[in-house]
Amino acid sequence: MRRRRRFWEEILQGPIAEMLFAGQDKAALAALGKRLGDEGDEPWTAGEVYLVGAGPGDPDLLTFRALRLMQQAEVVLYDRLVAPAIVDLVRRDAERIYVGKESDRHTLSQEEINALLIRLAGEGKRVLRLKGGDPFIFGRGGEEIDTLAARGIPFQVVPGITAAAGCSAYAGIPLTHRDYAQSCVFVTGHVRDGRFDLSWDALIQPRQTIAVYMGVGSLAAFCRELIRHGMAAATPAALIQQGTTPRQRVFTGDLTTLPPMIEKEEIKPPSMVIVGEVVKLHEKLAWYEPAAVAPDT
Amino acid sequence: MRRRRRFWEEILQGPIAEMLFAGQDKAALAALGKRLGDEGDEPWTAGEVYLVGAGPGDPDLLTFRALRLMQQAEVVLYDRLVAPAIVDLVRRDAERIYVGKESDRHTLSQEEINALLIRLAGEGKRVLRLKGGDPFIFGRGGEEIDTLAARGIPFQVVPGITAAAGCSAYAGIPLTHRDYAQSCVFVTGHVRDGRFDLSWDALIQPRQTIAVYMGVGSLAAFCRELIRHGMAAATPAALIQQGTTPRQRVFTGDLTTLPPMIEKEEIKPPSMVIVGEVVKLHEKLAWYEPAAVAPDT
Repeated sequence: MRRRRRFWEEILQGPIAEMLFAGQDKAALAALGKRLGDEGDEPWTAGEVYLVGAGPGDPDLLTFRALRLMQQAEVVLYDRLVAPAIVDLVRRDAERIYVGKESDRHTLSQEEINALLIRLAGEGKRVLRLKGGDPFIFGRGGEEIDTLAARGIPFQVVPGITAAAGCSAYAGIPLTHRDYAQSCVFVTGHVRDGRFDLSWDALIQPRQTIAVYMGVGSLAAFCRELIRHGMAAATPAALIQQGTTPRQRVFTGDLTTLPPMIEKEEIKPPSMVIVGEVVKLHEKLAWYEPAAVAPDT
Repeated sequence: MRRRRRFWEEILQGPIAEMLFAGQDKAALAALGKRLGDEGDEPWTAGEVYLVGAGPGDPDLLTFRALRLMQQAEVVLYDRLVAPAIVDLVRRDAERIYVGKESDRHTLSQEEINALLIRLAGEGKRVLRLKGGDPFIFGRGGEEIDTLAARGIPFQVVPGITAAAGCSAYAGIPLTHRDYAQSCVFVTGHVRDGRFDLSWDALIQPRQTIAVYMGVGSLAAFCRELIRHGMAAATPAALIQQGTTPRQRVFTGDLTTLPPMIEKEEIKPPSMVIVGEVVKLHEKLAWYEPAAVAPDT
């Protein structure tokens, strides 16, 4: 009796149900058929990886699919960009593996993360790869499932609210707006060998918003390059630290006044930079007022 | 007794709780103080507008905040881009107002929508303005709250999974990828007076993904312009119809082979176009297999 209940629980709440929710009808039917052909009391053994976007920080911005998969995974790999308040929502008895981040010491290389995902899924585990923001926007999610796909390991991808959208909404700075911007470009402020890998002329366009991920460390150089390539120094720019969290801080200025604020205000990552005329709307549209002093999350 | 219970329900589940969830501590305390100063049995009368992103179509991609506000609002204004399966999740007894969309017949103009929001909030109602995708990415959300801000009407903005991110995840086409794209630009295929309002040279950049919203109707002209401005005709391009829903269809080709598919395959909006080398990954990374024949949602 107990075995039977567990069997149905597994089908109704487990990987087969998730396949159905994800629209993978054929795979679900095949798995169900296989399962019914088994003795009916063996645990589920096909490993799977869920590549899930955790959004920008506020746990209230998790999607239903993300939280459900967080509740089902047996192992969770997460990095520094996932807010602790979100990691807390992972299933209690799940194994949690901190895989760090590039600029971190206690970190795994991308190759090590890929290898770990393959090993865990190979052991028949349901593995959650939890990423800050959206896994396919500067998340290296593509690289990670590349190796899974090559080995035939099943996976799902769950989009998340990307940092630019989260910060935009919570700072009252629309990324597009009929009067100010009809396009928006997402880049990283990441510098390799002392150089940006960016097409400056493409960035500097009228009526275009620039959203810069991971841009705190290189903001001064970034703004300098924009000006050097012809962007007006008075172009409005904003910096949103820990956007969407109770510790959100928003700073506005222009290409010359914003960079010095980083040192003066002790601004730290994670932060999002937004450049463009839309920044002017912040003063009017800001609505989110986190408590002045909030606990460190 | 019943009055007291309603009073506390209102505070614990109503607008004051939502202000706290949204980090608006000061406003919440002020409202609570005001409420306690009242007789304690008057209904809440301060109107408020929730500008909420409904995501790309799959109800499973709603955020917790979005669904909670959908359950609380007394009036909901929604347009054609919000999936019916999502409108169904609005509170049962809420008034639903279909405000259409530009290309629609039964439609309100942007000015009429703005005026309606102001009127309803002025009547003390909790008004939900539900938008497909993200309200600040081609959602005209900024324009709508502009008029609210000018009149001092309280509002909140809830980001949603934008269509580009949703389609990217469910089609297995990362928007950025170390080997193929280090930036991503969002534009609309919208044509005004027969012309695109786009900077072609800025779009045509190596290692950049272009995501085109509302691009089905003008895809042929869009691809023609890209080629005319120097983009290789063999640049990979994808079209995702009704992305993230059970009716998702993905078509891939290049700048010359994709446009003719629209007529041949009877592709209709809502659809997202993705242009760039990342499209090549679809073949390997596609994981979402909706049922071949799904009910129209």
